[in-house]
Amino acid sequence: MSDEGGYLSGMKINGRQTRSIWLESDGWSVGIIDQTRLPHDYATLRLASCEDAARVISTMQTRGAPLIGAVAAYGMALAMRDDASDQNLERAHAVLLATRPTAINLKWALDEMIAALRNRSRAERIAAAYRRAAEICDEDVVINEAIGRNGLRLIEEIAARKKPGERVNVLTHCNAGWLATVDWGTATAPIYMAHDKGIPVHVWVDETRPRNQGASLTAFELGQHGVPHTVIPDNTGGHLMQHKLVDMAIVGTDRVTAQGDVCNKIGTYLKALAAKDNGVPFYVALPSPTIDFTVADGVAEIPIEERAGHEVATMTGRTADGRIETVTIVPTGSNVANYGFDVTPARLVTGLITERGVIAPNRKALEDNFPDHASRRPDTRKAVE
Amino acid sequence: MSDEGGYLSGMKINGRQTRSIWLESDGWSVGIIDQTRLPHDYATLRLASCEDAARVISTMQTRGAPLIGAVAAYGMALAMRDDASDQNLERAHAVLLATRPTAINLKWALDEMIAALRNRSRAERIAAAYRRAAEICDEDVVINEAIGRNGLRLIEEIAARKKPGERVNVLTHCNAGWLATVDWGTATAPIYMAHDKGIPVHVWVDETRPRNQGASLTAFELGQHGVPHTVIPDNTGGHLMQHKLVDMAIVGTDRVTAQGDVCNKIGTYLKALAAKDNGVPFYVALPSPTIDFTVADGVAEIPIEERAGHEVATMTGRTADGRIETVTIVPTGSNVANYGFDVTPARLVTGLITERGVIAPNRKALEDNFPDHASRRPDTRKAVE
Repeated sequence: MSDEGGYLSGMKINGRQTRSIWLESDGWSVGIIDQTRLPHDYATLRLASCEDAARVISTMQTRGAPLIGAVAAYGMALAMRDDASDQNLERAHAVLLATRPTAINLKWALDEMIAALRNRSRAERIAAAYRRAAEICDEDVVINEAIGRNGLRLIEEIAARKKPGERVNVLTHCNAGWLATVDWGTATAPIYMAHDKGIPVHVWVDETRPRNQGASLTAFELGQHGVPHTVIPDNTGGHLMQHKLVDMAIVGTDRVTAQGDVCNKIGTYLKALAAKDNGVPFYVALPSPTIDFTVADGVAEIPIEERAGHEVATMTGRTADGRIETVTIVPTGSNVANYGFDVTPARLVTGLITERGVIAPNRKALEDNFPDHASRRPDTRKAVE
Repeated sequence: MSDEGGYLSGMKINGRQTRSIWLESDGWSVGIIDQTRLPHDYATLRLASCEDAARVISTMQTRGAPLIGAVAAYGMALAMRDDASDQNLERAHAVLLATRPTAINLKWALDEMIAALRNRSRAERIAAAYRRAAEICDEDVVINEAIGRNGLRLIEEIAARKKPGERVNVLTHCNAGWLATVDWGTATAPIYMAHDKGIPVHVWVDETRPRNQGASLTAFELGQHGVPHTVIPDNTGGHLMQHKLVDMAIVGTDRVTAQGDVCNKIGTYLKALAAKDNGVPFYVALPSPTIDFTVADGVAEIPIEERAGHEVATMTGRTADGRIETVTIVPTGSNVANYGFDVTPARLVTGLITERGVIAPNRKALEDNFPDHASRRPDTRKAVE
């Protein structure tokens, strides 16, 4: 699948172009990168069942809102290959939907699959499922390329106000890079395009505790592509903004509400507050399937996933002699809490970088630009009848 | 020294009362806790020279603004024991002052020692140095007890507005506990007193990357004292405040300026922004030697220590089989940055909890309450003449 569709991939691992999800050479099983082993090991996983797909989403061996949607779509295809009954279609939808409660792309992709399959005969469902899953992947790449072009203009505007050669400092949180999508990334697409055009862009990479997606995944991606970057503790962004060391922030998102509130990795809200306090533009890059027109007030309405405490209590890394080891960092007997996401109110967001342009974070702009999404509002409770 | 002075210690390790610094039984060397081995190992260190004192401050085996002052004071005494000349007095002052550029208590304690010693004969200097160092320690305990009583009233006011038995949630950042002082702590003194009085206080403990003083030291302290607490990633506080899960924040500080700006561990500013955005009172607990009347605009004027990158690139903890291991968490080739502190502007601070009461964070309140400090303004460049 990595060579299908005719889209140029910008992303490389060890100099070789790749996507983050592909159909294996057997023509039916699905390959992904095991993201829990990055940046120290590059290993791939082969998914051969719906349960495999659900498991790798739950364990975060695959993660990132758009990529989760793509993996879940193939999970539905794998389910159909096992048993193309209505009952199994419904079961697979439920199993995959239960893996992560916050990202809306997951629900979007599953609803897309249901829509593509429910009115077909069992005999047609397998081929139709693989076809729609591949389309979802290809659409994600096209969307991210468009996000990249739209965001690139924002970086170019900042670069134009600087002295020649002076670097443009972008802060990002978590990983909204190509590892979180099928290719390019959302927040990183404008960065990669700016770098490739010769703009001296430098990225402040938030470590992103507790899972360290910034330190392990975003830093890895940027390093593989040759983009200058500096990993910082999540505590650091405010200080950098106070001292004019950040020109703009670009983050991804797991769900944007009808009024423009942004749900993203825990800690995003704190950076948005600091950006507002220091006049730093704060952008959110998103593919339109991330917009959830059924929700308005993000803080009040979006369920925030609470994950296992060991993700906070421990840290995994590489020892001096090259082993991957997990160490406990809290005292025995201390409680821990692990909220996966927070919500940044629309008032703190400068703009939403979408495939249809950079738009204001409010209901009118969202409805005007995405009237097709705004009217659709799928309801999964009625998905399989 | 731990039993000197007649002050009751509230602090315990393994049920035994202790201070964080003491005179050893030989009557001249100085004992401290090796804080880099907490929470997994409790180990003490014996300081026998000024260089020992400087080294343990630089390595952060001892840390916390008030405790650094106390260790530096004894470092001066140890220097006098080796060589009580004017030249060595000046040299010791310079060596110790160079260890950490941000905390002002360090400079304050060193200036106090110079003032106590410079007009004395060499023969008198050793005894005078040990006497003044012991006084600085005892004064710190008295100050922290007063901070505790003043902060306790704030917690009692919140508890009085709640249903009986409903917990009071306090968020803190880094370690401003008794490990950071000689006893009681600054931010923790009100918490310990509230807990001891039977108020159901619960503490959200920010992990505090990159050195994890929250996860390792504050959690350890609170656990030893039996105070309910939950360790959270530094990214989490904003989400908790949005959902009414924080009643107040109390943090310590390394330096408060004449206009009430607060320099504290990196990330404090982000929590203060979230507190302001959600109407959560944000208090800073400090002993008056932390006030620096020579500085007004904290963001512009306070030098922010940049520490070694390995503190960000690595994490130390306990392996499953009980070894202490350090693991690398960033990709090979990624840059890291490690700013130690940030500055929270006075406009974000609800009140300063001092030994003389809870006062407003502005010049008038600071000068009115601390006229003795405001007029003194020591200048170390002229300390030894």
